[in-house]
Amino acid sequence: MLKKLKEKLHKQIPLTKYMQISPEEIKEDKLITTAPIEPNINDKQTGFAGSLSTLVTISAWSACYLVIEEQLNFKDTMIAVIKSDTSYRAPVTKNLYCETTMPNEEEIKRVKEKLDSKGSASLRIKSQIIEDEKVCVDFEGIYVIKI
Amino acid sequence: MLKKLKEKLHKQIPLTKYMQISPEEIKEDKLITTAPIEPNINDKQTGFAGSLSTLVTISAWSACYLVIEEQLNFKDTMIAVIKSDTSYRAPVTKNLYCETTMPNEEEIKRVKEKLDSKGSASLRIKSQIIEDEKVCVDFEGIYVIKI
Repeated sequence: MLKKLKEKLHKQIPLTKYMQISPEEIKEDKLITTAPIEPNINDKQTGFAGSLSTLVTISAWSACYLVIEEQLNFKDTMIAVIKSDTSYRAPVTKNLYCETTMPNEEEIKRVKEKLDSKGSASLRIKSQIIEDEKVCVDFEGIYVIKI
Repeated sequence: MLKKLKEKLHKQIPLTKYMQISPEEIKEDKLITTAPIEPNINDKQTGFAGSLSTLVTISAWSACYLVIEEQLNFKDTMIAVIKSDTSYRAPVTKNLYCETTMPNEEEIKRVKEKLDSKGSASLRIKSQIIEDEKVCVDFEGIYVIKI
């Protein structure tokens, strides 16, 4: 499932391939995504803010996609971020490691009901880039889903 | 000045080169930056949210950099985004065109005083991606500067 998602991202969104973004695993309620530091470096030899922002944005999108298209089995949906808040708390100095909180059962039930009745719904997703147990980037995005 | 900035970005931040981000001109109080759609496309054949986010984030950083390093002549400063809010209002379907509002005289005076007295300051910068006179992306970032 995550291998298929990675192939889809790299094929359809060239920037994710250049950044070498990789959905790695789902651990408890977290989707883990990673990217090496080299293509994502800045002038200070730390993670470029644009790369950090891209990683959290596509990771949270991926969490939505996995719920909507894999778990709920809606196909060819439109999922798009409409708003995001990002806090950059500390520089990232190693390979990028991102944890995204998957929607819980209650949220998934609400979204399914909305999609069945209205054809559209939204999800609020949190994503963090973490290094040595420290949160470097804190992201929250609102994603709309249309079927 | 903008040619030098473009060379710096492309040399030091590989993602900006891949995206072909280009600082084009300063028109009245706006810094104009652009990027072609091709390397920045998504699965819906519109501008990828990660690319849009990266373009506004680095464009607002560039506005800070031009004020601090070119206009005020501080050198080798640390300029970093610490917080950003982004609204994605409409899909981008053509080459990316971004307008960033340069800090005004009063803000520049305040920042210079802060840097001279404390060695650090912050700037709040607005940036928009526009297509056919419609605002597609609205961004505001807070940048800290240290000398």
